[in-house]
Amino acid sequence: MTEDLEFEETNGNVSLVPLGGLGEFGLNMMVYETENDIIVIDTGFMLPNADMPGVDLIFPDIHYLVERKEKVRGILLTHGHEDHIGALFYVLRQLDVPVYGTQLTLAIASGRLREYNVLGKAQLNTVAPGDTVELGDFSAEFIHVTHSIPDTVAIALRTPVGIIVHTGDFKFDMTPIDGKMSDIQTLARLGSEGVHLLVSDSTNAERPGQTPSERSIYGTIDNIFQKADQKLFLCTFSSSLHRIQQFIELANVHRRLVAVTGRSLLNNVRTASELGYLNLNPDYLIDARDASMFKPHEVVILCTGSQGEPRSALSLMALDNHPFLKVERGDTVVMSARIIPGNEKAIGNVVNHLLRRGAKIHHERNANVHVSGHGSSEDLKLMLNLLQPKFFMPVHGEYQNLMRHAELAESVGIQSDNVKVAEDGELIRLTSETCEIFGREGRSGRVLVDGKPEFELEDIVLRDRIQLSEDGIVVPVIVLHSDTGADISTTDNKSNLENMLNGIEDVSGIVQTDIPSETGLNAGQIEIISRGFVYMDKSEELMEEAKEITRSVIENLSDEQKQETETVQDEIRGALRRFFSKQTQRSPLIFPVVMRV
Amino acid sequence: MTEDLEFEETNGNVSLVPLGGLGEFGLNMMVYETENDIIVIDTGFMLPNADMPGVDLIFPDIHYLVERKEKVRGILLTHGHEDHIGALFYVLRQLDVPVYGTQLTLAIASGRLREYNVLGKAQLNTVAPGDTVELGDFSAEFIHVTHSIPDTVAIALRTPVGIIVHTGDFKFDMTPIDGKMSDIQTLARLGSEGVHLLVSDSTNAERPGQTPSERSIYGTIDNIFQKADQKLFLCTFSSSLHRIQQFIELANVHRRLVAVTGRSLLNNVRTASELGYLNLNPDYLIDARDASMFKPHEVVILCTGSQGEPRSALSLMALDNHPFLKVERGDTVVMSARIIPGNEKAIGNVVNHLLRRGAKIHHERNANVHVSGHGSSEDLKLMLNLLQPKFFMPVHGEYQNLMRHAELAESVGIQSDNVKVAEDGELIRLTSETCEIFGREGRSGRVLVDGKPEFELEDIVLRDRIQLSEDGIVVPVIVLHSDTGADISTTDNKSNLENMLNGIEDVSGIVQTDIPSETGLNAGQIEIISRGFVYMDKSEELMEEAKEITRSVIENLSDEQKQETETVQDEIRGALRRFFSKQTQRSPLIFPVVMRV
Repeated sequence: MTEDLEFEETNGNVSLVPLGGLGEFGLNMMVYETENDIIVIDTGFMLPNADMPGVDLIFPDIHYLVERKEKVRGILLTHGHEDHIGALFYVLRQLDVPVYGTQLTLAIASGRLREYNVLGKAQLNTVAPGDTVELGDFSAEFIHVTHSIPDTVAIALRTPVGIIVHTGDFKFDMTPIDGKMSDIQTLARLGSEGVHLLVSDSTNAERPGQTPSERSIYGTIDNIFQKADQKLFLCTFSSSLHRIQQFIELANVHRRLVAVTGRSLLNNVRTASELGYLNLNPDYLIDARDASMFKPHEVVILCTGSQGEPRSALSLMALDNHPFLKVERGDTVVMSARIIPGNEKAIGNVVNHLLRRGAKIHHERNANVHVSGHGSSEDLKLMLNLLQPKFFMPVHGEYQNLMRHAELAESVGIQSDNVKVAEDGELIRLTSETCEIFGREGRSGRVLVDGKPEFELEDIVLRDRIQLSEDGIVVPVIVLHSDTGADISTTDNKSNLENMLNGIEDVSGIVQTDIPSETGLNAGQIEIISRGFVYMDKSEELMEEAKEITRSVIENLSDEQKQETETVQDEIRGALRRFFSKQTQRSPLIFPVVMRV
Repeated sequence: MTEDLEFEETNGNVSLVPLGGLGEFGLNMMVYETENDIIVIDTGFMLPNADMPGVDLIFPDIHYLVERKEKVRGILLTHGHEDHIGALFYVLRQLDVPVYGTQLTLAIASGRLREYNVLGKAQLNTVAPGDTVELGDFSAEFIHVTHSIPDTVAIALRTPVGIIVHTGDFKFDMTPIDGKMSDIQTLARLGSEGVHLLVSDSTNAERPGQTPSERSIYGTIDNIFQKADQKLFLCTFSSSLHRIQQFIELANVHRRLVAVTGRSLLNNVRTASELGYLNLNPDYLIDARDASMFKPHEVVILCTGSQGEPRSALSLMALDNHPFLKVERGDTVVMSARIIPGNEKAIGNVVNHLLRRGAKIHHERNANVHVSGHGSSEDLKLMLNLLQPKFFMPVHGEYQNLMRHAELAESVGIQSDNVKVAEDGELIRLTSETCEIFGREGRSGRVLVDGKPEFELEDIVLRDRIQLSEDGIVVPVIVLHSDTGADISTTDNKSNLENMLNGIEDVSGIVQTDIPSETGLNAGQIEIISRGFVYMDKSEELMEEAKEITRSVIENLSDEQKQETETVQDEIRGALRRFFSKQTQRSPLIFPVVMRV
């Protein structure tokens, strides 16, 4: 009897642990777990915001998986966007498990795996829509859906508690570029069979209506081609292969040669056309370095940089810094991508510079040159109505998007109590009867990477950077002399002082003084160095005073106190903090260094 | 003959020097100059973006005016928004000139003048719409226009070359809250008389159609009042007095008491109601500290924070950090303001947190709770058609807004050659026949202020901060011993080392070593300190290696080289830069300090 109960309580259950994507855009990663087995859907990364200085990449914290690595049966990928596959190399370095994805998804993922030397040991398994894979307690069926990249799938999991459908990113494009519709029939069949839990994409939950077909922008771009009488720059994400397909078709129609620039764009175009996901006549392709050899109206240049990324081709051209491409008066630039929140300023700067060069600019806000790959409210309702799930959990988005998606679910009749808005790191327990959020997993979170992925950026380092950027740093360096009878000549020190002052040209400030050696520990030299605090040429007086304060702090310490480096530092830090705050209303990091000789 | 020509070339001309607002939002300030006289329209400031860490305020560089201070006859203000008056105290500290503005504008401006101790000496002259002021070669007529703050004026300047109309901010609100329409009659009369140059607001040039009346949001807010059964928070800019008037009226209708929180909001409400610009029944006002004493449905709280400003009332409430106000489940929050580009992330964070507390949120993107105070395309065309100027110059906006406004001007028939898109710091020369951009004024630009306005933030300091924020700072401190025969005991140094390591708890890293004293100048102690670079607990090995590299750099220097502090620093900096770049792919600021004893 007890045994039966225990079996019911544990063996029969499925836990969900969202490691990323619930409370932010990006980092998509969901753990599904039974007593014996774990599978993971997607391993995405995220790009940092402006409030994370010096951060290159953000990965989900995968301690939860590493601690249970013997249970992990596989990683399932829904599609080839970086917010779903970008952390794969990072995960595979720590977990040696099979990966399942469609042909294009794995081909794109392989690029980065190769770059980070994990391709060799990676167990990549190609699946096709319609395939089913058995992974311990889970059976995963891959279902084709339309999105801005081909070969995208939703995943239906058969689990001990019932069917879970994890949509990944999707829209219902009724006229997709590659002719492959979302597999509505399979979704409807699952709905008839009975879906226990739907886990669905909330990206566009706040948009009313239906997301238009990818094909809906064709006319606008065609019109832009017709009117362009000089060079034409078409800028989009390197993974927007349906978009690129349309650009290439229109280039053919308008008899322009196609130059592709940017490593990621070139890689994706090459991969997709080799695998047949992009229909490309090589006769129309030219090397971007040769673009200037043709007349302006004979070429179209495909490039990246739609988000104003400073090192992208478009940003370089906007500032006339690109090695071989130039935007000139009369050229046309199409930014065929979403303006991602947070990037408005950077994009605006690029637009302003391009306009100054005399280019015509078409972007999302002034022309119909972009359409989303994510379903809007009515698409999300269609998914809900096709599947008619008992329980519903929104994923992919900030809290406001998840909340809005929850409202949509209730609006189509899902019981309010059965709609669960969870966030990263919460544990969701699913039984055949219930779905409850029952706690938090302590070790979830984000891993910030700056430079090499081996060097995780700790929160404390990031906090330091933010404080450094606010008010700079002041480093008082104090040499304390033990009373050894050593002859410390003032003249010698003077010449040293001159060396110091003359020698350092790129220093925002150095002030140095000599204090006569007395008995006990004495301040022999005091320097105050600063970066990012005040401009020294104008603040000599301020630093002279700071130096005096430092000296008097030391002089007022007892010999016992002087022996305690911590005490010396604390006293100096406190005195200078008060002084600088009063004088400048700034709060630099103050970091006293005590040297003893 | 020569004299006549000279007279024509100089005496007859008017120069325009935009010191701010042409190429950005904010900083609005325009200089109009003849041979004898200068007048200035508006003195705005700007708030910094995320890419300017630690900057509090931005002012226009006014060297151009200071160098010509004896010519400046007056400052004319169009309205009381900070992007038009926020730099007045900064300007009046350097220029002792009369200021002209309407009653409300001067009342609002006085607050900041008082705060910065310039109110006493300020020569403030109140004007009313319809008034004309003579200022040397200029005669300025003030013309009422509608905007989001009452008592706004456009200014018509009669100059030696003809009439210049400077619109300031405006819309054509046909049903303004205070019943005072834009003075279309006067504008039309000027148009008939003949306008030489129109200088007009481009803020909303990219928006199609007409900006709706301020009154158009009344119904939505009314509806929100009806549905709110708990506390209601209404959040807007402290200067949006028409908006605040509507909130107060609706509070009366729905029998809610009004609590106002936030210093700027309280000041503006007090000033405007004293002067009769706000119709306010004091019986309905309560102290925000007492709001919790009433039932939730009995109060409405007016607050600021619509841009997600971290120290605003709304942001504090979102994080449950407000001293006496609390957002709770079932409360309603209305963010009745524009989502300013660049603030999306901060606003999104506040919205997410408010939703987590269970509040209902209405903002610009999901409800009709905000309307702009700036005219859209059709309003701008109406202004152009009323005035029918010979020349046109768009102001107030980024380059893309100015360009769009220029297109609108051409679309209503202004000759393309007569439309001049200038930017900050360019000099525009206006004769009775021509209008030409003929150069740049070198000393224009921006003054960044961090802390007290006395401490201008130099570009080099800002650049340092940005670099510090990217990769942190590393400070190697080297003590070089002159060979004085001094007995430097290793034991002593060891205990010092322990002191150092124990003493500093909030240091991200200190590494220290002892090098035996030999002959000549020797490295006695080497420490490497870092902030914002790597997390020291995990990077001890890295810093040990860095220390070894520093030591070997010094050992490989000749005694002569060791005498040159600059050489020692350069060598250490170079070696460590290469080392850190290879090991971590990061480029911290490296700032060696050489101490000599």
